[in-house]
Amino acid sequence: MSRVVYVNGRYVPYRDASVHVEDRGFQFADGVYEVCEVRNGRIIDESRHLARMRRSLKELSISFPMADAALRLVMGETLRRNRVRNGLVYLQVTRGAAKREFTFPDPDAVAPTLVVIARSVDPAIGEAVAQAGIRIVSVPENRWARVDIKTIGLLPNVLAKMAAKTAGAREAWFVDRDGFVTEGGSSNAWIIVGDALVTRHAEHGILRGVTRTTLLDLIAIEGLRFEERQFTIDEAKTAREAFVTSATTILTPVVQIDDTPVGDGKPGDIVLRLRQRFHDIAEWRSL
Amino acid sequence: MSRVVYVNGRYVPYRDASVHVEDRGFQFADGVYEVCEVRNGRIIDESRHLARMRRSLKELSISFPMADAALRLVMGETLRRNRVRNGLVYLQVTRGAAKREFTFPDPDAVAPTLVVIARSVDPAIGEAVAQAGIRIVSVPENRWARVDIKTIGLLPNVLAKMAAKTAGAREAWFVDRDGFVTEGGSSNAWIIVGDALVTRHAEHGILRGVTRTTLLDLIAIEGLRFEERQFTIDEAKTAREAFVTSATTILTPVVQIDDTPVGDGKPGDIVLRLRQRFHDIAEWRSL
Repeated sequence: MSRVVYVNGRYVPYRDASVHVEDRGFQFADGVYEVCEVRNGRIIDESRHLARMRRSLKELSISFPMADAALRLVMGETLRRNRVRNGLVYLQVTRGAAKREFTFPDPDAVAPTLVVIARSVDPAIGEAVAQAGIRIVSVPENRWARVDIKTIGLLPNVLAKMAAKTAGAREAWFVDRDGFVTEGGSSNAWIIVGDALVTRHAEHGILRGVTRTTLLDLIAIEGLRFEERQFTIDEAKTAREAFVTSATTILTPVVQIDDTPVGDGKPGDIVLRLRQRFHDIAEWRSL
Repeated sequence: MSRVVYVNGRYVPYRDASVHVEDRGFQFADGVYEVCEVRNGRIIDESRHLARMRRSLKELSISFPMADAALRLVMGETLRRNRVRNGLVYLQVTRGAAKREFTFPDPDAVAPTLVVIARSVDPAIGEAVAQAGIRIVSVPENRWARVDIKTIGLLPNVLAKMAAKTAGAREAWFVDRDGFVTEGGSSNAWIIVGDALVTRHAEHGILRGVTRTTLLDLIAIEGLRFEERQFTIDEAKTAREAFVTSATTILTPVVQIDDTPVGDGKPGDIVLRLRQRFHDIAEWRSL
C-alpha cells in the first residue's frame, strides 16, 4: 500500500493526500496520466513515459513547468519513501484548480496539479497471470476520437473492463464498426499470424503504448517479422497466438477471445519467450 | 464567490474543500454532475435535475444512498451558507475513493463522493448576453457514444468551447459526420424554421436537457409548433432564428454560426419572447 503521496510540492500521508474540489481533473477530466512499471528499484522506460506525457500535455495546451530531471527526482523520492522496489509509479497532471468554467483558466494564474503515487506489486502475481493466460471480451468501440492522448477521461475504459470482469475475463478489446480491433481497455492488442507479429498502427485510434514501442525494439533485435496493420476480431480468434501489452502487464498471453480459444487455448510460445526477453531490452534501455 | 462547500457530509471553507487523490472522479472521470439555476432563492427545475442525476448514476451502477429529500436539504443549506439568491448550485457525485483499479470497487466498502458548490451570479450578465445574442462555431462531433449520461468526462466539451472562445464565439455546436448538429458544448441546440421550433430527438446522441424539457412544456402551453428531428448545420445557417438552452443560459439567441449571420443577425423575436416567459412556467413547476 501507499504510505506517502506527492501532491503539488509536498509529500503527504496517503490518507491526507487530496486535491481541491474544483481541480479540473475532478470536474472536467482535464488532465493526463502515466503508469510506469518499477522493477528491481528501477523505473522501466522512464524516458519514453515522460516523453509521452509531454506530448499529451502539449495536445491539451497544458503548460507543465517542471523539468524532466526534477520530475525524475520526485518519482524516485516517492518510490523511496514508499519503499517500492517492485510495483508501479503513477503520475497525474491536470490543468489545476479554478472556479468552474469550461474554457481554460489563465495559465499565469493557475498552476497545473501534479500527483505522484507509488505502490508495491508482487511481480509473482503478474507472472502467474501470464503463465495461465487471460480471457478477452470484445466490446463496441465507443470512445472519443482522441484516445491517442492519455487523458484521465477513462470512464468508457472502466465500463469496458467491468464488462470483462463480469464475464470472467481480464481485459476488453474495443472493436470498431467495421469489425477491427482498436485496443484494449488498458493495453494494446496483438496477434501472431503465421510468423508475423501484428498490431495496429498508432494513429488517433489508439494510444501509442510505451511497452508496444519497446517491444518493437525487441522484435527488431530478434529479427522477427512485424506487420503494423489493423486486424478484425474474427482474424484474432483464428490467430496462432494473441497477447496484450502495457506497462503493468508487460506481455501477457491471451488464451480466449469471447467464446473462442486462441490456438490450443494455452499461452503461446512466442509471446512467453518475448515476455522473458522483454526486460533485458527494457532495462538496458533504462540504464 | 463560494465561501463554503459541502463535501461528504461536512460544510468546509472553500479553500479547504478537497477530495482524495484516488477519488475515481479525479482518476477516471467516474462520476456525474448537475448544474441548477437559482433564481430569487429558488432552485429551478430541481426535481428534474435530481431525476436526471439518478438516471445518470443508475446507468453507471453508482448506488447513491442519499434520499432526494436529504439532498434537497443539503442544496438549500449550501445556498444559505453562501448567501446565494441568484446564481447556481452544482452537484457532483463520483463512485468514491479507492486504490486505483479500473473495475469498480466493492460498493459496500467504498461510499460515493458528494460535492455541492453554490455560487452567486448576477442575472443581469446572462440577460445582457441574451440581448446581444451569441456566436457559435461548428466543430466535429468527437465524443464518446454515451453523452446521454451527464458524466464529468468533459474534456471534449472543454476543447470545443475553447475553440469557440478562440474564434470569438461563446458556444460550439458538435456536428456529426453526416452534417447534423448534435448539441452544444454545454447546451442543447435549437432552430426555428417557418413557425416550427426544431430540436434533435433526445436519444444517445445528446443529453436530455432539463431546460429543453421545460421549454417543451412552455411550447405546448403557448400552442407553438414543435418538430423533434435532427437538422444540419447548413439548415441552421438559413434558419429564421436559432438559440441554445441550458440551466445557466436558459434560452439564449444565436446570431451567427461560423461566418454566417442567422436571420438578420439580431436576436430573434420568438426566442426572446420565450425567454421572457420561461421562468413563469419554470417557477410555477418548481412551487
